[in-house]
Amino acid sequence: MRRHTLSVLLQNKPGVLSRVTGLFSGRGFNIESLSVAPTIEKEVSCLTLVTTGDEAIVEQITKQLHKLIDVIKVTDMSEHEYVEREMALIRVKAESSTRAEVLRTIDIFRGKVVDVCPKSYSIEVTGSVSKVQAIIDILRPIGIQEIVRTGAVAMTRGHK
Amino acid sequence: MRRHTLSVLLQNKPGVLSRVTGLFSGRGFNIESLSVAPTIEKEVSCLTLVTTGDEAIVEQITKQLHKLIDVIKVTDMSEHEYVEREMALIRVKAESSTRAEVLRTIDIFRGKVVDVCPKSYSIEVTGSVSKVQAIIDILRPIGIQEIVRTGAVAMTRGHK
Repeated sequence: MRRHTLSVLLQNKPGVLSRVTGLFSGRGFNIESLSVAPTIEKEVSCLTLVTTGDEAIVEQITKQLHKLIDVIKVTDMSEHEYVEREMALIRVKAESSTRAEVLRTIDIFRGKVVDVCPKSYSIEVTGSVSKVQAIIDILRPIGIQEIVRTGAVAMTRGHK
Repeated sequence: MRRHTLSVLLQNKPGVLSRVTGLFSGRGFNIESLSVAPTIEKEVSCLTLVTTGDEAIVEQITKQLHKLIDVIKVTDMSEHEYVEREMALIRVKAESSTRAEVLRTIDIFRGKVVDVCPKSYSIEVTGSVSKVQAIIDILRPIGIQEIVRTGAVAMTRGHK
């Protein structure tokens, strides 16, 4: 059992996404996170998917992904050198007694305050999945009101 | 026809995602971007979906989403005050003649260089979808080798 980050290039057409996710659920395989958005060519999207599972089954799913119409390319990132990052929006309680501590934490994690309300700050933070998890764990006792994470996105490193 | 950002809280179980995306493709509705990842409770995920479509049909889909087992809550963000952000990883050509221009652009957009190779920089940039599109448009003539975007994630603003 290992964590896999799959990167899938696909045609941006209705139905493709549902066929891709269907391949996983058909095997009772959970998708930990997924994100899909257009690339530089509007008609091609890039999907990044994180799943944890048995090596052989992930390989089997990868092969089946290749066979899907409208799937252009499938890369199992764990076989390459790659950069992986995630973004999270976090709304955290910020009352007069905790505000300084919240700001210090944001500073340490190089986060940005993207919205301020009288009793809360909304923060944007980016980094590895474990870094994002770390700031969440630190802010949790102060009082997190909401979190929205993008899930990991990954890109192979440039050549030579 | 209008752009809609939907935020969907769902149980993190195999099959839910494929039922959600299936609702859209069943109507020939394209999903512009989608991202889904765990919230503060591991068993609950938050999905953000961007689509453009006829008001009445989006409303109909929203109602059907509500009826899906394992869907906890559906919010059409356009009915609220909200914060929307996206992250992109961009690998851009960086040769001696263009490196200064690339770095200047990164600086203006408050991007971060997350990886350096002899002939390319990998950049992380965050902001509104239109800001991310703007840096892509500016870097394009210099030579973009790869882009991976997370798609928009959105969070309602805190209350009073």
